Amino acid sequence: MPRLNAAARELIAAGALAHLATVNKDGSPQVSVIWVGLDGDDLVSGHLDPGQRKMRNMARDPRVAISIEAPGANAIGLRNYLIVHGRVRLTEGGAPELLSRLAQTYIGPGTMFPPFPDPPPGVVAHTTITRIGGTGDWAEPGT
Amino acid sequence: MPRLNAAARELIAAGALAHLATVNKDGSPQVSVIWVGLDGDDLVSGHLDPGQRKMRNMARDPRVAISIEAPGANAIGLRNYLIVHGRVRLTEGGAPELLSRLAQTYIGPGTMFPPFPDPPPGVVAHTTITRIGGTGDWAEPGT
Repeated sequence: MPRLNAAARELIAAGALAHLATVNKDGSPQVSVIWVGLDGDDLVSGHLDPGQRKMRNMARDPRVAISIEAPGANAIGLRNYLIVHGRVRLTEGGAPELLSRLAQTYIGPGTMFPPFPDPPPGVVAHTTITRIGGTGDWAEPGT
Repeated sequence: MPRLNAAARELIAAGALAHLATVNKDGSPQVSVIWVGLDGDDLVSGHLDPGQRKMRNMARDPRVAISIEAPGANAIGLRNYLIVHGRVRLTEGGAPELLSRLAQTYIGPGTMFPPFPDPPPGVVAHTTITRIGGTGDWAEPGT
């Protein structure tokens, strides 16, 4: 199974936004912009509202594609990005805690997030990576 | 049909990258990072290689979803982005000319792009917008 290398892990840990592509019930594509973190070799994201379209899509079909813009550009000037394909496992609860952790990077240290008391437990999406692409080198050699 | 407002048009004209979601033949999602421009109310993109997976996907099913990161954040600190759903029409030829125009923004003024002589004519993807979303206000009122 491919594993993200140090550069990819740094990019994600630095708070780069993830563009999550899923597929709607009618077979059309859906894209959402989300926060992601690392949990071992998996990507994780927290979702307070399991009724959102992307959540229903991932519950129906666990295949996802994620793109993340990266600093810099390649030799011909194309800006760098990371693409991850994976399979999602959804687990109940834990979304506020994960979002609170990610908010310290995505918004800033000391952020209270969700920004209201008693948030619902939500859902955590754990993405096991099946393929790594994009411009440049994002996979751990030999994985 | 929804139309992009001035803020959305400025964002695109400023060279923000577009994350293009399509659907693979096996029903899984695909995401690519591309350059986009405006052609009237449509989005346009140039593609030198019609054999790429995203091109085959759009030829098979014209439904696409596109996300674009924007400067700034909303009231609770979530960074702004634009989502466009649309239907693509592919036309033969013209990709080098369009890419050359977009390269002046995406890479910089005076850029020669494609960066090699005699590029293939390629394909231009014209996306008619069917739905506008994301954080903030990106649609022309009343459209």
